[in-house]
Amino acid sequence: MKTDLADPLSSWNEGPSKESILRFVESAVESDSEGYIHPKNRIAVFDNDGTLWSEKPFYFQIAFAIKQIQLVADQHPEWADDPILNAAVEGDQAAILAGGVRAIVHLALSLIEGETTEDFEAEVHEWIGRARHPDSEKLYTEMVFQPMLELLNYLRANEFRTYIISGSGLEFIRVWSEEIYGIPPEQVLGSSVRVKYELRDDGPVLIRIPEVDFIDDVEGKPVGIHKFIGRRPVFAFGNSDGDLPMMQWTAAGEGPRFVGFVHHTDGEREWAYDRESKIGRFDKALDQAHMRGWTLVDMKRDWKVIYPFELE
Amino acid sequence: MKTDLADPLSSWNEGPSKESILRFVESAVESDSEGYIHPKNRIAVFDNDGTLWSEKPFYFQIAFAIKQIQLVADQHPEWADDPILNAAVEGDQAAILAGGVRAIVHLALSLIEGETTEDFEAEVHEWIGRARHPDSEKLYTEMVFQPMLELLNYLRANEFRTYIISGSGLEFIRVWSEEIYGIPPEQVLGSSVRVKYELRDDGPVLIRIPEVDFIDDVEGKPVGIHKFIGRRPVFAFGNSDGDLPMMQWTAAGEGPRFVGFVHHTDGEREWAYDRESKIGRFDKALDQAHMRGWTLVDMKRDWKVIYPFELE
Repeated sequence: MKTDLADPLSSWNEGPSKESILRFVESAVESDSEGYIHPKNRIAVFDNDGTLWSEKPFYFQIAFAIKQIQLVADQHPEWADDPILNAAVEGDQAAILAGGVRAIVHLALSLIEGETTEDFEAEVHEWIGRARHPDSEKLYTEMVFQPMLELLNYLRANEFRTYIISGSGLEFIRVWSEEIYGIPPEQVLGSSVRVKYELRDDGPVLIRIPEVDFIDDVEGKPVGIHKFIGRRPVFAFGNSDGDLPMMQWTAAGEGPRFVGFVHHTDGEREWAYDRESKIGRFDKALDQAHMRGWTLVDMKRDWKVIYPFELE
Repeated sequence: MKTDLADPLSSWNEGPSKESILRFVESAVESDSEGYIHPKNRIAVFDNDGTLWSEKPFYFQIAFAIKQIQLVADQHPEWADDPILNAAVEGDQAAILAGGVRAIVHLALSLIEGETTEDFEAEVHEWIGRARHPDSEKLYTEMVFQPMLELLNYLRANEFRTYIISGSGLEFIRVWSEEIYGIPPEQVLGSSVRVKYELRDDGPVLIRIPEVDFIDDVEGKPVGIHKFIGRRPVFAFGNSDGDLPMMQWTAAGEGPRFVGFVHHTDGEREWAYDRESKIGRFDKALDQAHMRGWTLVDMKRDWKVIYPFELE
């Protein structure tokens, strides 16, 4: 498949979704238009799981956590008595998912044993470079959405600053976000564990400690935006109910706003799910999107390709 | 006094401090030099109180807090029984300072009564636009350091991203940092209180709640840098022991690094203080600066002017 160099969104089919994006951005940069937005306010925020890359059969960071648990499980016979950790050792994702966010946090915290932030980054870097998705057998970083990569580039070419606002760990995403999305670490917000400074004989280190610092999900998303960015976004993209407060917060600002959702409608090329899904449930936010006329991207209808490798 | 347009640091006297800055930046941008730094890594961090503006007779945010306490004191007769709050009502700064960081935090938290972040920003905006320093009778924002404004501009002209890393409140600084320093809110880190998202009938709000979220001081500074920026700075400026961990963290990175301190040596034009001062104590960090050859800016010797109004 060829990409059209003159079209910044060449993997998007013509239609209302593509049209709404182009119309918003074109008027944002047109200094005498009603939709004009000063460059300093051109903040665009994106959820990650299910919005910039796939999230099935489970959030990709869970695959990382399970792998790390399995690597050290033989040093932790006591984990056998913990249903969640035991499920991780057995590779039983369904049991972990059934436990919800609490189970995921428990997994993540159990892995922390006084390692430095640099050691953690090295572990993520090693894993992300070789681990493959159980169904597609692609690298996880190959399972990003080509149309969204084009959207990120298009926004940046028009002086928007693109941010990730993710429920997953910010230390996990920052390792590869610059290379894969062109989003530098300082523009990645996510959930985090507490970190402690220590001056050792061979120099200072930051130590990860097994306590939650911040959960950047649902109501945490606008809170995180306030804390990290300190300005209200004008453009927001998500895919689930977990993004709804971020969308409400974005939409409620004065002046032109863009709110968009990726609707996973393509069971052939990706996955089809919404109201009933445990991962990426899209129910209340779907109602709101209809009611408020927010852009609803129908993956099947709107996207010529899903993944970059389809272009090869 | 005339500024020299050809000299990006025209308020700096010639000497080792100015020389060390110019040498570092010139080689950072020279792609075939040993000191070259890729633009993505050009992160420069600055303490605020005592580094970018004055901090005597007490951190300027305390003046704001005292004023706000006094505004509502008659609705709070119970404050008379609280030594710190009572000191604020009486305008007794010495008593507040004697209580250290704990007293300052107590003041700041006592002011919070379910206001929105937008209300708080409006209060800061109103105050900063009219409140005057008790000695100089200048606006607080006129008491920023002209040589440091030049340094911020010089760094940005060379593709450094300039950040503030302050022990004071991030919501306090962000209101005016872009106008005064050219540093946008998303590049201001500071101490923070917890914030809660609420969807009200007339739209979503963020409510400030009277609990500490993060203290961005001493060991908190490198932790904050990790959390907000996710990259180690290559350039750091501070003025007190509270900045030492940030300096150690910056200096310990691989490759070229710049670490500088403002030494308050000018009792005529500003204030002279270091090892014995309650505010901005500069003792251990002063020893370290000598020992490690970090740049030590002697305000009296190195700066032609202190404040921008001296140029008029």
